[in-house]
Amino acid sequence: RVSSTLTEAAAAMTDNGMMSRAKVLTIDNMNPTVKKVEYAVRGPIVQRAVELERELSEGMKKPFAEVIKANIGDAHAMGQQPITFFRQVLALCSYPELLSDSTFPEDAKSRACRILQSCGGFSMGSYSASQGIDSVRQDVAQYIQRRDGGVPCDPDNIYLTTGASDGIVTMLKLLVCGEGTSRAGVMISIPQYPLYSAALAELGAVQINYYLNEEACWSLDIPELQRAVNEARRYCNPRALCIINPGNPTGQVQSRQCIEDVIRFAAKERLFLMADEVYQDNVYADGCQFHSFKKVLFEMGPEYSETVELASFHSTSKCYMGECGFRGGYMEIINMDDDVKAQLTKLVSVRLCPPVPGQALMDLVVNPPQPGEPSYNNFIKERTATLSALAEKAKLTEQVLNTVEGISCNPVQGAMYSFPRITIPEKAVQEEKGQAPDMFYCMKMLEETGICLVPGSGFGQKDGTYHFRMTILPPKDKLQILLNNVKEFHQRFTLQYS
Amino acid sequence: RVSSTLTEAAAAMTDNGMMSRAKVLTIDNMNPTVKKVEYAVRGPIVQRAVELERELSEGMKKPFAEVIKANIGDAHAMGQQPITFFRQVLALCSYPELLSDSTFPEDAKSRACRILQSCGGFSMGSYSASQGIDSVRQDVAQYIQRRDGGVPCDPDNIYLTTGASDGIVTMLKLLVCGEGTSRAGVMISIPQYPLYSAALAELGAVQINYYLNEEACWSLDIPELQRAVNEARRYCNPRALCIINPGNPTGQVQSRQCIEDVIRFAAKERLFLMADEVYQDNVYADGCQFHSFKKVLFEMGPEYSETVELASFHSTSKCYMGECGFRGGYMEIINMDDDVKAQLTKLVSVRLCPPVPGQALMDLVVNPPQPGEPSYNNFIKERTATLSALAEKAKLTEQVLNTVEGISCNPVQGAMYSFPRITIPEKAVQEEKGQAPDMFYCMKMLEETGICLVPGSGFGQKDGTYHFRMTILPPKDKLQILLNNVKEFHQRFTLQYS
Repeated sequence: RVSSTLTEAAAAMTDNGMMSRAKVLTIDNMNPTVKKVEYAVRGPIVQRAVELERELSEGMKKPFAEVIKANIGDAHAMGQQPITFFRQVLALCSYPELLSDSTFPEDAKSRACRILQSCGGFSMGSYSASQGIDSVRQDVAQYIQRRDGGVPCDPDNIYLTTGASDGIVTMLKLLVCGEGTSRAGVMISIPQYPLYSAALAELGAVQINYYLNEEACWSLDIPELQRAVNEARRYCNPRALCIINPGNPTGQVQSRQCIEDVIRFAAKERLFLMADEVYQDNVYADGCQFHSFKKVLFEMGPEYSETVELASFHSTSKCYMGECGFRGGYMEIINMDDDVKAQLTKLVSVRLCPPVPGQALMDLVVNPPQPGEPSYNNFIKERTATLSALAEKAKLTEQVLNTVEGISCNPVQGAMYSFPRITIPEKAVQEEKGQAPDMFYCMKMLEETGICLVPGSGFGQKDGTYHFRMTILPPKDKLQILLNNVKEFHQRFTLQYS
Repeated sequence: RVSSTLTEAAAAMTDNGMMSRAKVLTIDNMNPTVKKVEYAVRGPIVQRAVELERELSEGMKKPFAEVIKANIGDAHAMGQQPITFFRQVLALCSYPELLSDSTFPEDAKSRACRILQSCGGFSMGSYSASQGIDSVRQDVAQYIQRRDGGVPCDPDNIYLTTGASDGIVTMLKLLVCGEGTSRAGVMISIPQYPLYSAALAELGAVQINYYLNEEACWSLDIPELQRAVNEARRYCNPRALCIINPGNPTGQVQSRQCIEDVIRFAAKERLFLMADEVYQDNVYADGCQFHSFKKVLFEMGPEYSETVELASFHSTSKCYMGECGFRGGYMEIINMDDDVKAQLTKLVSVRLCPPVPGQALMDLVVNPPQPGEPSYNNFIKERTATLSALAEKAKLTEQVLNTVEGISCNPVQGAMYSFPRITIPEKAVQEEKGQAPDMFYCMKMLEETGICLVPGSGFGQKDGTYHFRMTILPPKDKLQILLNNVKEFHQRFTLQYS
């Protein structure tokens, strides 16, 4: 070890002949689990998109006038407007002198006062309790209770988080343990949202893949779960099952029956359930409805409701509000062992508290204007407009993509993405051995059209199939152009490599 | 393993005789590194303080009228007022309709516009780049350059963070590696801020203690660093040296000479330097001055400035602004290997981005109103008032505590805390074997006076010595009462156990 360090150091002569020290921290001696982390949603293709934007702004000629980032569920960046009431309250909380401004509606003021009264020194600049502001957790609990038709919710089981990602990583952290064949395994869907694979890689846990059934609208089939867990038990200790509903990147909405079956499976196989439900308001397809895991669990009676351990995650970043930048979110934990819960509370205290503006926003999401309050009508108008536009764009995306030969697309029942399957000619697959074929495809599309998508390989897919994820967030007229450009690109690409 | 699980399950009969499943996740099978985490600043004593507050509010009689939380550097909770300009800009960014409100000053509006123009869709609700908003990172770089007398700063080396804690944990994460005697070790001061020990425990790295010299005003002595690293090399691989300057919990401000010596030591011993400089504006003592590690490094010439790897951390939570709840911060990395830097950028992308309001606030801290701008005079007035009050309270705290027999207190040269040494009578030490003697002392003080302090054992201290950490943040009149109550309690406690 010492001699290799000396060799490195000796090799590191600078141009002016001065002896330079070798780096203390190098790619060879850094944390190996960090190196294994991958996060396609902000991967190389997005870095190239940022470069292209810079090149365009510097006047470089490109075959397109702007880069359209359809790679990430970033609603406001795509022009979606924030809910006025939410932003009024946030402004009042930021600068309470505005409480005497008569142009602000009374309900916004009273909401702001309630939030500030729960903050130390009446200021969002104070740390909150690590679990989150008490009154916000109470409002979250009431929201969940209303949402789930009266199933009780204890504010003590609510933890406010820095976006949903923070809560998911924290829960996974608790579950990790063991070495060798006792190493903790976590079941995730394929395709998945790459936060899961990234967190598992970083934590050194085993990723257990179960495949969603693309032929049946990305349904979750119990036999496939069973296959995955059986195989996994040979080499690790499966401890948790993660579900994303509505699905990301796949956009399916699970039926009540499916959720019940998943809960039975988790109980039988002794798995901790993690339900990523951040798209709970993003349901568009006729006949589809959001069912929370919590509600279904409680409808299954005490054999399940008093035993199955569940964590459910929500966020301010999606649905009709799309407030990603504020990093608000919560998790609800159910049937968690008391001692483990105490450890969870201790663990979150090390990071002091989630951002207070994000907590305030989460409070507004779970406790929006009520009928009879001055802001109610406008709130409903804004929320409805956003959700109807999304529903329309979900349908448009599916329709246009399915007109293209070589692209096939399941209905976007919910969430914010389409994840169509694409046929990539064998010649293109052969030609680009250095990278995944769909990365090659998406990179080429970016260079030629300015459209930034994420290749399916970043989410996982069955071997030999190729996809991309595209958000449905651009404004309708822009989305129409984008879809036509995708269509033309696909036809050109197919021709070129046939 | 299986049989023990069955036993557990069998034991778990509920009252109504129904067979209940044993928990999947228990204290015995959860992540063992999480169990090792301790965080005294929000530990059992603070939980008891919260209980006492609730009991008081429910009308229970106590020997005090209110709980005073002097356990945490939470300025606004102690009544410190936010900087008006900062909050005006945040309100404008939250609700841009206010840009047409003539009561807001023009410089606040132009700052808000600049921030919003850097946000996707002109909204703080958009994700930013994972490394942080470009224009904010540029402003941070210019701030550092001004602060350090022109030493160049590249915005590419700036990473915005969710408070300083986030940056520190992220850097430690990169450094962790190895097993057995090759396991990564990180040197931290004792006393330390317990984020460090908590993060090292969670990451499974080795904590290497070096002791500050209480007799010489908590100075950092090179021979002690040498002793610590020599001993540690027998059982681990020391990779990094963490310094907190100004000190937390100890309040000392390091001399330029000391910093230079530390840098030489790090270079000689091949250690990555981590400089926690979140109290850089909190310097009160005559003759003391803040010297950044970066500036000293660059003044030492290319042998050091081109080789020594350094990460420096700052935050919106301390100094004169005290905006803890917004979770803003940045880190600057210097001489980091390019491949490692690419890994760092990838790692932070998994969490998408730091909270945008916190980024906006960080921008205002590094780019406050300038001479000639409408808000300049008021900004200077507010900042000066806060910093002078803190300087006065630092002196008052030292003076009063040093009048008590059995308490001795170094000058609070900087930061926001006093860390006095207390004499605990042998009888009290003997009586309370179950807990650290200073925990027993602080818990008793809380029950009798309502004052919440953190025992020295939560930060680490030389064996056989006892301390507590107390913030200097309460308003002066309240601080005076608090100090007198501490004095009386100490005398009573000493008498009782003599």
